[in-house]
Amino acid sequence: MENIHILGFGGSLRRQSYNTYLLKACTELMPDGSELEIADISNLPFFNQDMENNYPENVKNFKNKIKNADGILIVTPEYNYSVPGFLKNAIDLASRPYGDNSFDGKPVAIMSASIGMIGGARAQYHLRQSCVFLNMIPVNKPEVMVPFAQQKFDENGKLNDETAIKFMRELLQNLVDLSRQLKK
Amino acid sequence: MENIHILGFGGSLRRQSYNTYLLKACTELMPDGSELEIADISNLPFFNQDMENNYPENVKNFKNKIKNADGILIVTPEYNYSVPGFLKNAIDLASRPYGDNSFDGKPVAIMSASIGMIGGARAQYHLRQSCVFLNMIPVNKPEVMVPFAQQKFDENGKLNDETAIKFMRELLQNLVDLSRQLKK
Amino acid sequence: MENIHILGFGGSLRRQSYNTYLLKACTELMPDGSELEIADISNLPFFNQDMENNYPENVKNFKNKIKNADGILIVTPEYNYSVPGFLKNAIDLASRPYGDNSFDGKPVAIMSASIGMIGGARAQYHLRQSCVFLNMIPVNKPEVMVPFAQQKFDENGKLNDETAIKFMRELLQNLVDLSRQLKK
Amino acid sequence: MENIHILGFGGSLRRQSYNTYLLKACTELMPDGSELEIADISNLPFFNQDMENNYPENVKNFKNKIKNADGILIVTPEYNYSVPGFLKNAIDLASRPYGDNSFDGKPVAIMSASIGMIGGARAQYHLRQSCVFLNMIPVNKPEVMVPFAQQKFDENGKLNDETAIKFMRELLQNLVDLSRQLKK
Repeated sequence: MENIHILGFGGSLRRQSYNTYLLKACTELMPDGSELEIADISNLPFFNQDMENNYPENVKNFKNKIKNADGILIVTPEYNYSVPGFLKNAIDLASRPYGDNSFDGKPVAIMSASIGMIGGARAQYHLRQSCVFLNMIPVNKPEVMVPFAQQKFDENGKLNDETAIKFMRELLQNLVDLSRQLKK
Repeated sequence: MENIHILGFGGSLRRQSYNTYLLKACTELMPDGSELEIADISNLPFFNQDMENNYPENVKNFKNKIKNADGILIVTPEYNYSVPGFLKNAIDLASRPYGDNSFDGKPVAIMSASIGMIGGARAQYHLRQSCVFLNMIPVNKPEVMVPFAQQKFDENGKLNDETAIKFMRELLQNLVDLSRQLKK
Repeated sequence: MENIHILGFGGSLRRQSYNTYLLKACTELMPDGSELEIADISNLPFFNQDMENNYPENVKNFKNKIKNADGILIVTPEYNYSVPGFLKNAIDLASRPYGDNSFDGKPVAIMSASIGMIGGARAQYHLRQSCVFLNMIPVNKPEVMVPFAQQKFDENGKLNDETAIKFMRELLQNLVDLSRQLKK
Repeated sequence: MENIHILGFGGSLRRQSYNTYLLKACTELMPDGSELEIADISNLPFFNQDMENNYPENVKNFKNKIKNADGILIVTPEYNYSVPGFLKNAIDLASRPYGDNSFDGKPVAIMSASIGMIGGARAQYHLRQSCVFLNMIPVNKPEVMVPFAQQKFDENGKLNDETAIKFMRELLQNLVDLSRQLKK
């Protein structure tokens, strides 16, 4: 059985981001026969169409990492009931230039954490709409939305919530299964 | 009758952006007794919660311009069926820090242009969802979505479309009327 | 100070619907100087454009009740991550025929309850998008989404949740205030 | 190569519905090795949870047709910027009772026609959100949104638009391909 390589990105830019913690927690929850690489998106430039045929190295690297992955994991905070600007910008960059959408045809799993009750759901549905244009294949279930995140990570950013961990394992398993199926 | 001051921002970062042209075209379509100031959002940093109590000057200036405005005009391109990252980032910045949302209670009009048929509609509805959290009051009608933008601006970026201009005038009038009503 | 008349509708068709209970609970939470009338939408026909110039009496009555109201309250369950068909159908009926949208210009408050954690949020944002076309003015805050409804109503359908009641009072107050402002 | 059976439903209830015409037009555009059966949803009752364990025959038949299909085609008009009530109601019915969602795991293609420019896009994205809960797998591309429908059908309801037909063929091909892949 071939190894499945997943590329994950997201979280937020602050040091103690619950969503960054969530993304990191996934590295230890991957099913056998798979691995998760985390891409750093904190230093990408704003997308500007005038520069898209001359992307800087870090954008090219980000695009290559996506292309080389069998599947994608996006961990999105929710800002103002939608996807954060910096994270959407990373997606905008990798979707371009026209005809070179790095996400094309990739399976994707989406997760989020929030300090409130809704758990980032609103950001997730906006992201799913972007996936239609990006021609990505989102895993439907389980939806991982971790509410009350401030109660679920310890001071070192370690996730202490069995329910969340259970659903995260299940979602990652489904992502890996779908990635394996589509790789054939 | 008191003068109404509208702050507009948006467009995209490339030099010959149709949405930037659209925003600029609005300056000449404002009703009597009103004015449009355009804010430059091209040099704002990415939002990072760790810096939000120590924003750089250009973020503070952007927030002050919003607070001093009677109403807001956002001209949004559509990237990947949603709001562009760089534009959403500007909104994220001005909505923070917690308790200091510069948009709170402001009326807002939304416009977009696109080279396709849909005219940016998908970005506009995502932006309207953000307006709920931002506690903004969006003008409902007319919705200004300019399709086939490449046929509607001349080489200098001047808008040559009487239908679009008519609806833009009407939307700006409604924004100014609502801003005047709420200012009382 | 003039009395404000709010028309409420929604809930679901089953007898022990939490959303119907929620709607009924609102009758006792209305601010002074206002009243809530509940419209029965359980016997409306499916919208069919061929009959829209010859609506049956109950559709005409529903449309008249809406037109005579100063503001609208919609209590929506969430079915399949959106507004239930029967409730959307009632809205479709009252929005027609073309040129006779009964909701035009009306302020509206939206509430929902659910047995899960999300509390009907997804249905509410879909309904808000319909409000753009309907030219309604939705109250932004507070958003009333009652999760875990099965724990919050007694066997007689009485709401026993102080937090929910507090936010419901606040939302109804804001709806009445906006309705009074727009009535002038 | 096994024959692929697609079940289609939707359109609107009026006799000369463009969306009903669109659905019927699909019967002649199916790829070799596939067939389209159209389900009548015009006489279904409103969903009511109290009756869901005792559905009338036509609901049971509708559910069985869905279960027996390899893939689903939904043709949705757009009412008030969302899915029409009667069509959403059909989906609500077939998704229940709890644990017996007839759509579970089915691939689906979505089409729409409208007299305006947007072509039903807003209804399609709401329907796609429902598909997450329904655990359906929507085909991403091409998106078939037929604008200015009044210019594209003759007096007998025959579609006369080569561009639309081309994209419809492509979408139906993709639906059949996906259905075949998932059937294995």
